[in-house]
Amino acid sequence: MIVAESPTLEEWQVELERRRSVARTLTEEHEADALLVFGSDGHGESFRYPTNFQPLLGSMWLVLGAAGDAFCALDFHWQLEEARRRSGIGDWYGMPGPVAAVIERLQMLSPRLVAVAGLERLPVPDWETLRTALGDAETVDVGASLTRLRRRKSELELRCLRTAARLTDNALDTVREELRPGTTERELAARLGYLLRRESGEWAFPPCVVSGVDDPIPIREPTERRIDSGDTVMIDVGGSWEGYQADASRTWVLGEPSEAQARAWAAVVRAHAAAVEQVRPGVACAEVARAAVDVLHAAGYELGHRIGHGIGLATSFEWPSLDHDDTALEEGMTFCIEPAVYLPGVGNMKLEDDVVVTGDGCEFLTEASRELVVES
Amino acid sequence: MIVAESPTLEEWQVELERRRSVARTLTEEHEADALLVFGSDGHGESFRYPTNFQPLLGSMWLVLGAAGDAFCALDFHWQLEEARRRSGIGDWYGMPGPVAAVIERLQMLSPRLVAVAGLERLPVPDWETLRTALGDAETVDVGASLTRLRRRKSELELRCLRTAARLTDNALDTVREELRPGTTERELAARLGYLLRRESGEWAFPPCVVSGVDDPIPIREPTERRIDSGDTVMIDVGGSWEGYQADASRTWVLGEPSEAQARAWAAVVRAHAAAVEQVRPGVACAEVARAAVDVLHAAGYELGHRIGHGIGLATSFEWPSLDHDDTALEEGMTFCIEPAVYLPGVGNMKLEDDVVVTGDGCEFLTEASRELVVES
Repeated sequence: MIVAESPTLEEWQVELERRRSVARTLTEEHEADALLVFGSDGHGESFRYPTNFQPLLGSMWLVLGAAGDAFCALDFHWQLEEARRRSGIGDWYGMPGPVAAVIERLQMLSPRLVAVAGLERLPVPDWETLRTALGDAETVDVGASLTRLRRRKSELELRCLRTAARLTDNALDTVREELRPGTTERELAARLGYLLRRESGEWAFPPCVVSGVDDPIPIREPTERRIDSGDTVMIDVGGSWEGYQADASRTWVLGEPSEAQARAWAAVVRAHAAAVEQVRPGVACAEVARAAVDVLHAAGYELGHRIGHGIGLATSFEWPSLDHDDTALEEGMTFCIEPAVYLPGVGNMKLEDDVVVTGDGCEFLTEASRELVVES
Repeated sequence: MIVAESPTLEEWQVELERRRSVARTLTEEHEADALLVFGSDGHGESFRYPTNFQPLLGSMWLVLGAAGDAFCALDFHWQLEEARRRSGIGDWYGMPGPVAAVIERLQMLSPRLVAVAGLERLPVPDWETLRTALGDAETVDVGASLTRLRRRKSELELRCLRTAARLTDNALDTVREELRPGTTERELAARLGYLLRRESGEWAFPPCVVSGVDDPIPIREPTERRIDSGDTVMIDVGGSWEGYQADASRTWVLGEPSEAQARAWAAVVRAHAAAVEQVRPGVACAEVARAAVDVLHAAGYELGHRIGHGIGLATSFEWPSLDHDDTALEEGMTFCIEPAVYLPGVGNMKLEDDVVVTGDGCEFLTEASRELVVES
């Protein structure tokens, strides 16, 4: 059992007031009269950020008026009590097809300009209904700006991410101890999922297990394939706590690694170190990627995919995508570093850790054993 | 271990040819020159139906020309080999931001009218780019018509649903045997998830566990609450096989039920029987709901929510919503029947089974023990 504490409701309240105040400032900067935030089933990060809530089912809408008045709407009323408690917002609506209620609320504000976030998830039919109902009022997409607010993590957010990382470490180190030849990929993936969800009831994504040496593909569904001695086993897993998502990978070889496995792994470890070494405020995202690519090229390998991406209330699609972005890193940003080499005869070799940018470098959030060899 | 067999690729091929042929006929009926189908991360059922594939990550696009030519596009190239194998479609594209490739493909067809399905998931910015690029070409939303095709299940689909139901039964009956006072909701939910995913690597939705008698809410996240003697324990769980999703609930009382628990449960069981009794071809969906409501009202209870909904490549939002719909049931339709009573002092009392409509009635797909009492 991992003992983990959530921030108190009072701590959340202070955090949310700050976030909603920054969101209102952003709305004012665009000279908009209201902010509309949309989140969809399973992709509610833009909504969750200012509300600390995401329903189990259905869409979610937030209308934030210039005066600080907030209104939220969901498809179901079942979780409204929890939503009110977590968000500190009193005014919630919960009925199928909430767009009509959202429009009514927006019209009460007689807006000339509405700032909108979450357009990339908003249903086209709802959007067309809303645009028609708003008549002459203009809309402006502030999704990217709102996402930018999420880049630098607060102390409260880092606490949640550290807990998510601890859950991730626990799952990885536990199955590493348990792993025996004959286990199927599905059993291993299900066990990892059990270990994560037993502690927090959530995960960042379904655990990914790719084994063997002949199927070097970054991600796929786990199969009935039985893991055997000599196999490369790549595990990609993310614990989650209060919606904050870790994302880490380890690669193991059962028994004695072949020369090709050992050589590729050594290059991945060096690329990982070279990338981590680059991480500090002021360095461009692309520099982190370049350091890893240089190491791998020198060893005769290609980087399997980008070197990392942001983590927080989402993963994979969180800013930054650590490849060509020239934005400078800042203290408090969090992302994963995940150099990978995928080679026939070797398999999936990936080492992925979560880091937070500090004043003069970075700290690891994930710390599970990085040893390649698992005795079989 | 559950031994389950997937349909062979040859069987899938026959099934998919039929589905795509029906989709083309639908396109012709609308006098459209092409069909565009969109699916989003985690909501790919419209795309999966004609392709038998859904990527782990990102959006999915299908362009089906009038001549039967098919083109698919994803955000990543990693799973393209699997996608080709499963779909029997050769022409796949996989790069971030695939909408440009989709537009190019559509423009090659010089369409005057494009039929579109999946608009409710299509990102607004992509839709606007696409509409602009299509110039004078019109679009028509055929999402509802395409969804209608999915209502009556084929033999192949029923095989997959039967397997999903067996996995669901196995998870329910296994944890029923194991359940002891002191187990937390999260442990129980995680164990159910393990049992489902170990067999198939997938589930319909994260298992839901609501325990106690003082929190009668249909769904919420599992908590650290420890289950004790006298507690009502409601479990809502769905196994999944080849994308086909079961959805079943059981309610247990640990030890001796109170009179209030026993009385409410007896009414739920009678409502369940009354609803199932109504199910046969020609009966309106609303009749099924009415039968359950009548039983519950006579016993002094309110129905907690609608009596059921369709199951297939999705759940919860699949047609029909079994409440006010007057559409007549047809052979081969599949849905859940889930009468529920939620009462303070009693807790969550729900009994949910999946059924398929037969020539003269219906058959249960799920069969896990429906006994209320678990010895503690």
